[in-house]
Amino acid sequence: MTNDDILLRDLDADGVLRLTLNDVARRNALSEAMLGALAGAIADAGADAAVRVIVLAANGPAFCAGHDLKEMTAGRDGADGGRAYFAKVMAMCSGVMQGVVNCPKPVIAEVAGVAAAAGCQLVASCDLAIAADTARFNTPGVHIGLFCSTPMVALSRNVADKHAMEMLLTGDMTPAARAAEIGLVNRCVPADALREATMEMARKIASKSSMTLATGKRAYYAQRDMSLSDAYDYASGVMVDNMLARDAAEGIGAFIEKRAPHWQDA
Amino acid sequence: MTNDDILLRDLDADGVLRLTLNDVARRNALSEAMLGALAGAIADAGADAAVRVIVLAANGPAFCAGHDLKEMTAGRDGADGGRAYFAKVMAMCSGVMQGVVNCPKPVIAEVAGVAAAAGCQLVASCDLAIAADTARFNTPGVHIGLFCSTPMVALSRNVADKHAMEMLLTGDMTPAARAAEIGLVNRCVPADALREATMEMARKIASKSSMTLATGKRAYYAQRDMSLSDAYDYASGVMVDNMLARDAAEGIGAFIEKRAPHWQDA
Amino acid sequence: MTNDDILLRDLDADGVLRLTLNDVARRNALSEAMLGALAGAIADAGADAAVRVIVLAANGPAFCAGHDLKEMTAGRDGADGGRAYFAKVMAMCSGVMQGVVNCPKPVIAEVAGVAAAAGCQLVASCDLAIAADTARFNTPGVHIGLFCSTPMVALSRNVADKHAMEMLLTGDMTPAARAAEIGLVNRCVPADALREATMEMARKIASKSSMTLATGKRAYYAQRDMSLSDAYDYASGVMVDNMLARDAAEGIGAFIEKRAPHWQDA
Repeated sequence: MTNDDILLRDLDADGVLRLTLNDVARRNALSEAMLGALAGAIADAGADAAVRVIVLAANGPAFCAGHDLKEMTAGRDGADGGRAYFAKVMAMCSGVMQGVVNCPKPVIAEVAGVAAAAGCQLVASCDLAIAADTARFNTPGVHIGLFCSTPMVALSRNVADKHAMEMLLTGDMTPAARAAEIGLVNRCVPADALREATMEMARKIASKSSMTLATGKRAYYAQRDMSLSDAYDYASGVMVDNMLARDAAEGIGAFIEKRAPHWQDA
Repeated sequence: MTNDDILLRDLDADGVLRLTLNDVARRNALSEAMLGALAGAIADAGADAAVRVIVLAANGPAFCAGHDLKEMTAGRDGADGGRAYFAKVMAMCSGVMQGVVNCPKPVIAEVAGVAAAAGCQLVASCDLAIAADTARFNTPGVHIGLFCSTPMVALSRNVADKHAMEMLLTGDMTPAARAAEIGLVNRCVPADALREATMEMARKIASKSSMTLATGKRAYYAQRDMSLSDAYDYASGVMVDNMLARDAAEGIGAFIEKRAPHWQDA
Repeated sequence: MTNDDILLRDLDADGVLRLTLNDVARRNALSEAMLGALAGAIADAGADAAVRVIVLAANGPAFCAGHDLKEMTAGRDGADGGRAYFAKVMAMCSGVMQGVVNCPKPVIAEVAGVAAAAGCQLVASCDLAIAADTARFNTPGVHIGLFCSTPMVALSRNVADKHAMEMLLTGDMTPAARAAEIGLVNRCVPADALREATMEMARKIASKSSMTLATGKRAYYAQRDMSLSDAYDYASGVMVDNMLARDAAEGIGAFIEKRAPHWQDA
């Protein structure tokens, strides 16, 4: 890997993998190449026991500009006007977004610049997000006749309807502080404190049992859309299995004995 | 139409239709007449290409007092104690609320006064809402033994459970600033700036492609209750169709060429 | 009943039942004994016409510490490593939480201290919650290898995904003021005003028709997970039945005649 790669990977000793979008000239657009790189990196990280937490960061003034409109426009050249190509790109993009959600490792967005359209969707798809006070978020598809219909899937699962609709119908920029108010990001920090704030959160989570994090993250999204009683039936089963796992026995034992736990995979 | 009409219609050159509740003597109650007028006006606006955005405003100190309790009480005179009549009124009212949601044009509530019971529901049903700092919201059915069960359908889809329950169980007034905090309205502005703030938002949205707005609004509410993967499958299809529509080709072309787009229906 | 009971019951003349967790030595942990006492008390209160509203409070510095880890650990002694025991405890606990939701009487949490894990879940399960500014909330299962998978069922139905995930993945304490911001509690008050603020809300709700409160609370949670049109069909039916009930006739009549209503069961 070189600094010319469009997606940089850096795994530290704590098990925090930083994935840095690095296609600065294209404002880190979700080109086919970037979608492929992200899909691969997230799948790899999910399967790599050395990775405990993923931070998704970006180089340059834009966190991510969304789809690559020039590439999309070139796709119109097909005999079908681009239908098959657009369907392919949308499937790739939705696959990356759901790959973040389905990844067994927690994913934290570290957002310093503009996160637009599918870039905003990427932030919304992460489990956690910290923004610099310089960051901004929008779903500007209405400006170009292309409603941000896939970004809204993630956005509408993060913020209240009226807030989502305001972003979607106006395309206006939401400053970081407002994004924190409405729940699109967890918090907003001074730009020069962004990396450390994100890494502190990442290291804290990386110190937990990976088995436990994977169990909980999967269960969270699984129970989210169930009825209350179905969710309790399901989650109760998850708890029973979790109680019987080695790391819970160790963790509870350590707690009772007032010592630090030693996780199986640490 | 005269100023004696209970619902005033005013379409401006930008395609913003102001519907103004004008039954001031009855605090703009949702009488059968008002429900019929609203249903008709919203259906008409949905079908009228000249209407690009709808603003729902009101004359007098009350935005809308909810159902007309005197009319409802008179309905008890039937042999069935009013059952058929109440069912008819509830169906009309729920039809208006869903008519707002299903209308292909974005609907913005402009709330200067009290929005109570089904009046609060009407605000919650709109895609967007701006409130004067003098506005207040409540679901006061508990005061009269009639829980605001239909208003809560809209309310509970706008705000967190504990906030909705506080309004429903106490019947207390929620001031505009608090309504903005909990997501019932997008924002709260000084009373003398309300109309301009609303119209500015309306004109901004009216400048977008109507096809795109209709596509996006319909998709928003359709995907909202789906599972994540179903929502992505659905929304990806919407995006592909949207890409192939004339206004997206024009909008993306204009963006790349750094010029203003010309929408098909503008 | 004596002060040695782990759950104190105190019903006042307004119909407000205070249930006070009183196992201070165990930080009000949800031991089998406490779960049994809560299940019984809530079921009794639901069936007792003298009880109009329930307040769930606690003695000692902890509102509730969650499951009793020593008791859980002792449960490992079974031939199955504890599976049957854990399943039993989880079923009891989920039963209590759903018992709060399904109880026909509104339930208000009054939280002065730490509400952890299933203790946080208990607050999230209540219809309303008021916290002292000294209260704190967390879901610390990740610290001990046991993800708070059942607490998250209630938590994720109260707060936005990113806020829930931050609590679940870090285990960090959320101070009361932040809990109010994210919707986990209705509001945060000075510690010395907590009891009076809670009781004032409780008495206000207790002054309403119990039939109406029960109708509305049941309908709220029933419609919450329905599609919009199903929710309106259902809630419209609830409204019609409610209109035909004696307390609505009385309440609406009293409102029109500008007098105080007299509820059937008051």
